[in-house]
Amino acid sequence: MIVFSRKLADQYQNKLNEKFPEENFIYCDTIDEVNTYIQDTEVYVTYASDINEEFIRKAVNLKWIHVLSAGVDNLPFESIKKRGIFVTNVRGIHKIQMSEYAISMLLQVYRQEKPLIKNEENQVWDKDAVNLREITGKTMIVVGAGAIGSEVARLGKAFQMHTIGVSRSGKKVEHFDENYKISELNQVLSQADFVISVLPRTVETKDIFKYEQFKAMSNHVVFLNMGRGDAVIEEDLLKAIREGEIGHAILDVVKEEPLPKGHPFWTEENITLTPHLSGLSPEYVHRALDIFEENLQIHRRNEDSYVNQIDLTRGY
Amino acid sequence: MIVFSRKLADQYQNKLNEKFPEENFIYCDTIDEVNTYIQDTEVYVTYASDINEEFIRKAVNLKWIHVLSAGVDNLPFESIKKRGIFVTNVRGIHKIQMSEYAISMLLQVYRQEKPLIKNEENQVWDKDAVNLREITGKTMIVVGAGAIGSEVARLGKAFQMHTIGVSRSGKKVEHFDENYKISELNQVLSQADFVISVLPRTVETKDIFKYEQFKAMSNHVVFLNMGRGDAVIEEDLLKAIREGEIGHAILDVVKEEPLPKGHPFWTEENITLTPHLSGLSPEYVHRALDIFEENLQIHRRNEDSYVNQIDLTRGY
Repeated sequence: MIVFSRKLADQYQNKLNEKFPEENFIYCDTIDEVNTYIQDTEVYVTYASDINEEFIRKAVNLKWIHVLSAGVDNLPFESIKKRGIFVTNVRGIHKIQMSEYAISMLLQVYRQEKPLIKNEENQVWDKDAVNLREITGKTMIVVGAGAIGSEVARLGKAFQMHTIGVSRSGKKVEHFDENYKISELNQVLSQADFVISVLPRTVETKDIFKYEQFKAMSNHVVFLNMGRGDAVIEEDLLKAIREGEIGHAILDVVKEEPLPKGHPFWTEENITLTPHLSGLSPEYVHRALDIFEENLQIHRRNEDSYVNQIDLTRGY
Repeated sequence: MIVFSRKLADQYQNKLNEKFPEENFIYCDTIDEVNTYIQDTEVYVTYASDINEEFIRKAVNLKWIHVLSAGVDNLPFESIKKRGIFVTNVRGIHKIQMSEYAISMLLQVYRQEKPLIKNEENQVWDKDAVNLREITGKTMIVVGAGAIGSEVARLGKAFQMHTIGVSRSGKKVEHFDENYKISELNQVLSQADFVISVLPRTVETKDIFKYEQFKAMSNHVVFLNMGRGDAVIEEDLLKAIREGEIGHAILDVVKEEPLPKGHPFWTEENITLTPHLSGLSPEYVHRALDIFEENLQIHRRNEDSYVNQIDLTRGY
């Protein structure tokens, strides 16, 4: 029995039923409903926040968990490992929308879209009102040079940018002209017109962007964070913006989400906020199920070469 | 004597003086000042609106006119031709900023930037407020498949789009997956998610976008005009938008510029207006002078293989 923690839209249910007529798919509405099937659940498809020690204990027939997001931080890895349950996620399906997000926001800032939209509202036709800049040919540093970072760099190259990737290993990643280690971050920051953070939440990268890092950047830099809010010390960012140490910050993630009303970020002219939407896509379910379908075929063939299999010891 | 109709910024003057120490460059502030040098002017560098029959008659030593824009429509071609004066322009230097414009505006509409900016102003953090779409993988038709259109298509390909070019000849142009003739326009329009017009002002393409063409497009199409306003019958566009025949129009050019206050375009939710700025760039003078410098060297070698030489019979 393959149990989904949430109802899928009819189109997706129909597609799965058609493609796997021999399977028994159950789509639940609530965790109570999941519990009625838990003993017979062989495959569980979920957004992962509902899985704890008790769940694993009750799910005596569980063989494989497919997580429909990239975040698996909260899973009880020890119990899962002891039971020999496989875990897969949808790592990699965020790269298209997140790289579109990054480019769109750099263009919004460089092309002065906020004041232009304001003028449009006021029926003002004035081409001299704003100071347009081009993103073409600029230098982009991507901190977190994984699958998403590489896709951002690929689009950067289409805009003739010089692309610098920063990652733990510093190893060569596709679409980057240069690659450096996290430990070398401070040396490269001054070269950037754009600094883009796609860092995941790990202990090593917590608070990595401090006043020192912002000070190392050029005064006109646009800093964009679409990784995790805890990579940034927010007081330091605010200080750097107010002192003109950096030009602009674009934040899709912050430490406390939703960002509370009255937070100073909201009213800072050179900070642009979006509500953690860089990973959203109308193609999300479609792409997440593509990976599920591929893995279901692997599962039925009793292979253990799952796509996006989580290493239960490392936790990612 | 090389006369400029306008003062150049010091940095550009210095660069020219350094590169061509043997030349006598004169930078004027007014047309009166130009007139004091007119008899000795061998090369005239101008935005072209100041050249008429009288000018050509007085400029008895004029050999070459370099126009710092793409538009040469208003030049007295007959007199220029009779005198054997060469004319060059800066055709091609608009392609970077115009393709950035096109992509940025498609992203603005597809990624719902206007309502998101409104939410930001109101300190509202709500990721479910808007219906984000991706431009990746969509189908783009570019009407006017020249140097600018090809550059737009190149960026479209970076976003994995299917690109269709429409031009007078219908001949194969780089970065387009398919190419059609203008006479075939109506047959291809229904395939597009985006229709982008970069048509120049010519008799043939005046009023080419009529109600019939908008009706042939899909209901969700985003139509973007950054060519000439007179390619569109504006009443027909307004009707098509109001009836839902097309999804959205992005207009950087209109028939009457500046668009007067109170014009119905201003208040139509599914029309986005920008004040004819797609061709603006901080790199404009720099790129325009690059072509001038190349041509000055050709001129001094007494060659007639100028870059961007205007065919005085055809007028472009």
